[in-house]
Amino acid sequence: MHTDDLPESAVQATRRTVGNVVALAVNAARHPAVERACAALERMAPPEQVRVLGRPGRIGATGAALLMGIAMHVEDYDDTHLDTVVHPGAPIVPAALVAAQWAGASGRDALTAAALGIEVALRVADGLGSGHLERGWHPTATVGHLGAAVTAGRLLGLDVEQMVVALGFAATQAAGLQEALGTMSKSFHPGKAAADGLEAAFLAAAGLSGPAAPIEGRRGLGELMTDAADYQRMEAGLGTRWLLEANTYKPYACGIVSHPVIDAAIALREQVADPSLLAQAELGVHPLVLQAMGIADPQDGLQSKFSVRHCFAVGLLDGTAGPEQYSDERARSPQVVALRRKVAAVTRDDVPKDATRLRATLTDGRVIGIHIRHATGSLAAPMTDAQLRHKARLLVEPQLAMATEAFLDQAFALDGLPDVDHLFTAADPEGMT
Amino acid sequence: MHTDDLPESAVQATRRTVGNVVALAVNAARHPAVERACAALERMAPPEQVRVLGRPGRIGATGAALLMGIAMHVEDYDDTHLDTVVHPGAPIVPAALVAAQWAGASGRDALTAAALGIEVALRVADGLGSGHLERGWHPTATVGHLGAAVTAGRLLGLDVEQMVVALGFAATQAAGLQEALGTMSKSFHPGKAAADGLEAAFLAAAGLSGPAAPIEGRRGLGELMTDAADYQRMEAGLGTRWLLEANTYKPYACGIVSHPVIDAAIALREQVADPSLLAQAELGVHPLVLQAMGIADPQDGLQSKFSVRHCFAVGLLDGTAGPEQYSDERARSPQVVALRRKVAAVTRDDVPKDATRLRATLTDGRVIGIHIRHATGSLAAPMTDAQLRHKARLLVEPQLAMATEAFLDQAFALDGLPDVDHLFTAADPEGMT
Repeated sequence: MHTDDLPESAVQATRRTVGNVVALAVNAARHPAVERACAALERMAPPEQVRVLGRPGRIGATGAALLMGIAMHVEDYDDTHLDTVVHPGAPIVPAALVAAQWAGASGRDALTAAALGIEVALRVADGLGSGHLERGWHPTATVGHLGAAVTAGRLLGLDVEQMVVALGFAATQAAGLQEALGTMSKSFHPGKAAADGLEAAFLAAAGLSGPAAPIEGRRGLGELMTDAADYQRMEAGLGTRWLLEANTYKPYACGIVSHPVIDAAIALREQVADPSLLAQAELGVHPLVLQAMGIADPQDGLQSKFSVRHCFAVGLLDGTAGPEQYSDERARSPQVVALRRKVAAVTRDDVPKDATRLRATLTDGRVIGIHIRHATGSLAAPMTDAQLRHKARLLVEPQLAMATEAFLDQAFALDGLPDVDHLFTAADPEGMT
Repeated sequence: MHTDDLPESAVQATRRTVGNVVALAVNAARHPAVERACAALERMAPPEQVRVLGRPGRIGATGAALLMGIAMHVEDYDDTHLDTVVHPGAPIVPAALVAAQWAGASGRDALTAAALGIEVALRVADGLGSGHLERGWHPTATVGHLGAAVTAGRLLGLDVEQMVVALGFAATQAAGLQEALGTMSKSFHPGKAAADGLEAAFLAAAGLSGPAAPIEGRRGLGELMTDAADYQRMEAGLGTRWLLEANTYKPYACGIVSHPVIDAAIALREQVADPSLLAQAELGVHPLVLQAMGIADPQDGLQSKFSVRHCFAVGLLDGTAGPEQYSDERARSPQVVALRRKVAAVTRDDVPKDATRLRATLTDGRVIGIHIRHATGSLAAPMTDAQLRHKARLLVEPQLAMATEAFLDQAFALDGLPDVDHLFTAADPEGMT
């Protein structure tokens, strides 16, 4: 297609549009807003380039934040604040690691900044309420922007006024559609939240201006992205009560809401040695399960993470649900496909988010009932420090081999490091960077 | 504040959050989603750096898009598609200019790509309907993302499947709060839309996946960002009827909805030589005017662009409303401040968007009524090609001096250039790049 394929009137209209704005671009090329944005980009860019965990070399700051955010979230195996269904680590920790590298900050400052950013993200999500999630927004992406801005802003040394501006740039970019679930766009969400939040802090530091009330203003984030935001709730007990203490960790590499179902499948496995004896499994689940995990017949590994039927099937067949259980091969395995077809999930209002009720009918007519009251990794049954470290060990051993324990020592005690660069070196034992 | 100022339970929770996600980051550092995102960043980044209109040197592609988008919109002097209140030039033309530089595309291909992106942006906004704007979204930012992705995607040679992915990355980043109006965050909106749309095209080209129906899906942009999206309307007549032909251009350097008010002030000036004779001006305006332009007592130049009272005052005092009328000095001028206080705007349901009814009472008791039926630059009274070129001339003459006409010849006929680099050279006659 060329201009010849467009009506001349459309071509002429486009010429006018182009001519008008390129004249404006020349006119305002030295406008303070442009100068400051350019200064922010230049400050972020070389020579202050940064490292990416587990990858050699150095890249630009926002790129590093993007890649680490994707990597932390892409297996759907990270952390969850259950009340808000926010996964705060993936959008916010990259902002801390990049800004701390950039600023040469200590591990202690990086950890403090991460804590503050996580707390802000969770509190905003908490105040936005369930309407935010129910409308179809992906809260990890939306409030992740705000948390990343706070974390990066703190490490850049923003004052209060600049921090409000950084929150404004973050809020006005807060987005993320649940429609992206089951695709690579989902893990892009926390990556971009980290990158945008980081950039927001640099823009604020460079002196750009923003709205005074980006969250609670009349046309701010709260009014636009939920039904009835509760701003007092966002602030109540700030500095004394820490929502981040209720962050939980995924024992299984899929959406948190299906974890009780996997627990039930593993429990059934202990009673039924041969999975082929299962005739039918009926699962009573919380309504969120079908909303988030409703893919009936997943075609690849990524989709299988959003299939409660697949989660049950691999739990019963393998007795676990790590990254291998959500590979493309496993999603298409005839044995898994056959077993998935025997699973039916039914929404029950009396089943909490971290629970499930399983009614399994066997081919010999036997019926087994299993009631999971609190899933592993839930608030009532949290992973211990040792369990969490073991999970991390399994994740990094393929890459780090003998260097695994030294890395884990640093990973779980960031505040003990003189600077975060140590962690990046520990994650790259061959020293290719 | 340091970790000592946080309760140990909060510090320990943060350590666990960090340890868990950094292990995931190492584990997934070579995941296809990360590899492809990294490939996209590397393809966008050096050595393929690009130029910025009116500025020397070269910077990264997304940075160039951001800066040009800000520059095109920062004076609120660009273009407006009145039905949708979208300003399509600023988010989309930068994507065309950057992607065309990157790809070495001809001016004709760049213009065609800009036309397609503008048309998509306008059609999506049209289908989202007035509910999108009324909720408080800034449509230039939201649908600007989509248009920029289409424009960049076309110049990068995306196939249909990749274009859907690019639209997905654009849709899931579509954001922009009206709360930002009156601050530098507003012009950041089209800049970031251009940058995000460009990046979306590179991500799609690199093979990342996205949702099949990012706009019309159950949790897609249409469901989340308006009351009742009309998807058929978005597509009706696509390729034959071009919404972009209804794009209009601002004769005055402020929000379009106040243009009839400025016309009225200028008309009053022709009848009342001395502005101090005005006792009171009552303006009957469309409801959008007070929603978008309601700042009663603007404190600086940027705020004054969103003050219908300021618009009227400078129109009456100066007989025009260019960038100088919205400087910080003019916003704080005692003469302007005094005159602003005599202006009252009242919403009237019988006044269309491009009209106003003025009732001016003079100190001698005289009453003058003025009815502006169609503002200059409206669809019914569009700027001619000569007027538009003259507007552009006044904008670039301070920078380009003797080189102005040569630049304008190119600016309004992009499709005649063998490559867009010519335009950048014309915008920088001292050849500093």
